[in-house]
Amino acid sequence: MHHQPINLAHKLRQFSDHWSPRVVAELNETQLKLVKLQGEFVWHKHPDTDEVFIVLNGEMEIAFRDGTVALRTGEMFVVPRGVEHRPSATLECQVLLIEPRGVSNTGDAGGARTAPSDVWI
Amino acid sequence: MHHQPINLAHKLRQFSDHWSPRVVAELNETQLKLVKLQGEFVWHKHPDTDEVFIVLNGEMEIAFRDGTVALRTGEMFVVPRGVEHRPSATLECQVLLIEPRGVSNTGDAGGARTAPSDVWI
Repeated sequence: MHHQPINLAHKLRQFSDHWSPRVVAELNETQLKLVKLQGEFVWHKHPDTDEVFIVLNGEMEIAFRDGTVALRTGEMFVVPRGVEHRPSATLECQVLLIEPRGVSNTGDAGGARTAPSDVWI
Repeated sequence: MHHQPINLAHKLRQFSDHWSPRVVAELNETQLKLVKLQGEFVWHKHPDTDEVFIVLNGEMEIAFRDGTVALRTGEMFVVPRGVEHRPSATLECQVLLIEPRGVSNTGDAGGARTAPSDVWI
């Protein structure tokens, strides 16, 4: 077996674009992805899955139709399936996402900001 | 909806025992658990699931029958299903575990160090 740790800071240094998640590990059918956020994303939902945001570095907000959650380093939130949300970050924020393999960043919304969903680093 | 972030450091201050995971969030059927490790655990495997270890604070090792992986803060490892492993930590190490709901800490080994598998904080 391959006994190399996955170093999250090292992986984060391997890309610089925003809103384009990179897969770093897989647990059964669930993927762990790193993503860098800056600015405001599109409103969307994931009809079939919950989605975990864990902030590794920085601050972000997730807007919902009925409120907002603000997350800082070391804080996390689970967006329930089917709930419309819009992530945003004033400055670059580094996030660990957890969601099933194949989930698209823009969910049901699609459009120009849709990134490939299964890019590993 | 409830818009409160989950603060991992705050959750970690709510318990002090070792080798007894606390669930902090659930993503579909997958749970995120905090655990504090110190000393040497028992050899065991989880026949039906992979298991993710993410080190939040400290250093730990995971021994396998054919080697060892050492993990520091910000590093992670996926133990594949069915692979025997024995976690250990010289000093207390704080870890985020990701695995399906219902997985026991001692896996197939059972025994005195088996902790309840679905305790939330």
